[in-house]
Amino acid sequence: MLGSPCVIFRMSGSLSIRGSEIAKGSFLLEQGLKMYIQDPYHKDLNPQGIVNLGTSENKICFDILRERLTRPDMHYLEPGMLAYNDPRGIKSFREEIARFLTDYGHAPTSLNPEHVIVMSGCCAIICALSTVICNPGDGFLIPTPYYGGINAYTALYSGLQPVHVPLYSKVGEGESYSFQLTTQKLEAAMQKGKEQGIQIRALILINPQNPLGQIYPAQLLKECLEFGHRYNLHVIIDEIYMLSVFNNTSFTSVLSFHDVPDPERTHFIWGPGKDFAMSGFRVGMLYTRNEQVCSAMSRLAFFHQCPGPIQYMLTQLLSDRDWLENVFFPTNKQRLKDSWKMLVTGLRGLGIPVLKHSAGLYVWADLRKFLKSQTFEAEMELWRKLTAGKLYIAPGKAFDCYEPGWFRLIFSVSSDVLQLGLQRLRKLLKETPEQTLEIQYQIQETNFSKIKPLPIM
Amino acid sequence: MLGSPCVIFRMSGSLSIRGSEIAKGSFLLEQGLKMYIQDPYHKDLNPQGIVNLGTSENKICFDILRERLTRPDMHYLEPGMLAYNDPRGIKSFREEIARFLTDYGHAPTSLNPEHVIVMSGCCAIICALSTVICNPGDGFLIPTPYYGGINAYTALYSGLQPVHVPLYSKVGEGESYSFQLTTQKLEAAMQKGKEQGIQIRALILINPQNPLGQIYPAQLLKECLEFGHRYNLHVIIDEIYMLSVFNNTSFTSVLSFHDVPDPERTHFIWGPGKDFAMSGFRVGMLYTRNEQVCSAMSRLAFFHQCPGPIQYMLTQLLSDRDWLENVFFPTNKQRLKDSWKMLVTGLRGLGIPVLKHSAGLYVWADLRKFLKSQTFEAEMELWRKLTAGKLYIAPGKAFDCYEPGWFRLIFSVSSDVLQLGLQRLRKLLKETPEQTLEIQYQIQETNFSKIKPLPIM
Repeated sequence: MLGSPCVIFRMSGSLSIRGSEIAKGSFLLEQGLKMYIQDPYHKDLNPQGIVNLGTSENKICFDILRERLTRPDMHYLEPGMLAYNDPRGIKSFREEIARFLTDYGHAPTSLNPEHVIVMSGCCAIICALSTVICNPGDGFLIPTPYYGGINAYTALYSGLQPVHVPLYSKVGEGESYSFQLTTQKLEAAMQKGKEQGIQIRALILINPQNPLGQIYPAQLLKECLEFGHRYNLHVIIDEIYMLSVFNNTSFTSVLSFHDVPDPERTHFIWGPGKDFAMSGFRVGMLYTRNEQVCSAMSRLAFFHQCPGPIQYMLTQLLSDRDWLENVFFPTNKQRLKDSWKMLVTGLRGLGIPVLKHSAGLYVWADLRKFLKSQTFEAEMELWRKLTAGKLYIAPGKAFDCYEPGWFRLIFSVSSDVLQLGLQRLRKLLKETPEQTLEIQYQIQETNFSKIKPLPIM
Repeated sequence: MLGSPCVIFRMSGSLSIRGSEIAKGSFLLEQGLKMYIQDPYHKDLNPQGIVNLGTSENKICFDILRERLTRPDMHYLEPGMLAYNDPRGIKSFREEIARFLTDYGHAPTSLNPEHVIVMSGCCAIICALSTVICNPGDGFLIPTPYYGGINAYTALYSGLQPVHVPLYSKVGEGESYSFQLTTQKLEAAMQKGKEQGIQIRALILINPQNPLGQIYPAQLLKECLEFGHRYNLHVIIDEIYMLSVFNNTSFTSVLSFHDVPDPERTHFIWGPGKDFAMSGFRVGMLYTRNEQVCSAMSRLAFFHQCPGPIQYMLTQLLSDRDWLENVFFPTNKQRLKDSWKMLVTGLRGLGIPVLKHSAGLYVWADLRKFLKSQTFEAEMELWRKLTAGKLYIAPGKAFDCYEPGWFRLIFSVSSDVLQLGLQRLRKLLKETPEQTLEIQYQIQETNFSKIKPLPIM
């Protein structure tokens, strides 16, 4: 029997202790999405609804996706799709994933489909993986700011706690950019965690980074893997935005390394939600060479299975290289670039600097001068003001950022929604007196000289 | 932080303690399905493969389902289906589920869509529900034999333990049928659990029963709810076979009661996997009037979401009452009846009695006389012999049955597979000398006089 208790658990109403904890908690991005779902902006049906520039979704490729997903090959149905199957994913789907990741991750040798585990979303993968590699109460290192959902994904079932590696906008000595991760910072966080008596079992990296949009240089990635190996840590690399790279920046997937210091403790996560603009499909996947992890994940996969027809559709999609190379990827990249330009130009018009970055569906924007004081209370006050004005953008607090005043804004929405979002932002900030900041802007801004300005409504 | 440890956890290889437990365990039905997936019988492609009469799936309605699921209305795609949505299920889907369950569960008043939670399969529902209402180490009462997957679903993430209510084939004093559940037996198990220091939080009932195929009389169901109320237990009623009732037997869903003793602790589970012959769709749902449970389940739903297109397809299916009433249900019922007759007639030809029952996709067959001794070792020996002979049927051990020698056989497969299964069973049992049993057959057998024999190959 798993998880025998050794403290006295009491019931809270009709829920268990953990049930009460689960029920009462919620993370900021979750609250934002919930607000939006209850009152979503629609040009005709709900023009006063919430404009959502807070939830990281790609909504600019629906037309080309619909064209592909409604072709006759997608309507095929065979008995196996309606029947129980391998909980870790149908074999033909795992084979196609292995081929796809071999190619797009630039793996030196073919990936093994037996090392692929499919689940209903990357959140399920992180939840299950953290359960099988960590004990309740264990910690994981994570550079902050980071996607705040991770906290819930590693806590609700698994009971883990994050140990932050704080990054700041100020470029430190010997560093070359804002929010730069270094192994020295990892070391410092590791020591701090130890001093607090936390057993640290894993390091989680999101690459391309969310919310920063930065890409980890290959050399830094290698150093992080070496660091993990030194401390016997599992290194989990979430590359869910790996194909949402624009501006011709090169991206190095961990899959491309000829060898890694500790293959048994190196785990790669990807899913089509962001890169294929289909978060509603609920598919995530793990690639790991650790047989024990595979076995344990295969069992937890019972609870996180993908429907047969969805696995089939994605098999068709991933294998259609002609469509991917000639239609989807070029169109998606161009649209991401255009939307990004529109947002950063618009923000510039409002005097809002944006961190230099080259991937993701978002920008990391510096609204510090609009805070009444440089505190998280003031950040939340600004956030509440914006949401009351029917604009949802995600505050830095949602990413456990250590500096108040940063916000993540999504640009992968239709241009009219983006323009409306900017309009609302302009209006709402106008009512907010700008503060004179004592702090100096230290961030590396996007080089605007290279951006052709786009009109703002 | 949830689940803080207070014992020293050690790592086992690269897995956590719980990860190792998860990796090494497996339940018998899981092993059976795994064997089958690796070597499935196919008339042309793999005629020597395993015939699967062990996994409870309805495979006799694929033709009518395919016709419905490939109609043009199913190919519709809208942006919302590819986007994040309410984790507990898209509103329109929950509304349709509420209407459907109101009608087919004969609810006295309309069910509230806000009390519906959708997840990727009933196993996910049971896993999440047991987490939010029970603490690790807590126990739940369950009459045995019962579907063995429940043990894994309540243990892997949640850490619960079953407290059995043993039922036997011998009809006890004052009882009227084999394996009869009574509140006296519930009381006895409750006391035994208490004596063992187990904190019992819930009672789980599967109705129609799996593997027995029996239907709980309305009066017994009410008594069970009263019993649960008396002990402050959550009563979880899994009605996943509620529409797979044949032989004109009437079935009482808990949804049909005007009031229940403790609505806050009464939870109903259903999914289309069995009744709509689509286990591969991975959809399960909870109906509960407990707002706290709803809140907690909504959060865990992150990890168990159904894809937008699947929710849409099922909305179409559940709302097409014309097709349900005039095509699907009558065809399915007739085919279930025909297949059932074929199996029980075939078993009778082999001298194998079958428990009287009226629902489900299976029969509960008495193979006691084919055991070398009346032990579970002998039962497993027979099981291994059958599987070596490429016939998979599920042994009583898989259902924590207290009497060795019972097996569950599925009849909802194509007639050629069913006939081949019977052929293989005949051949394999022929090599097994029958034992003279000291025990008397006490079971209520199916009344064969009413069954028109069907030819056996």
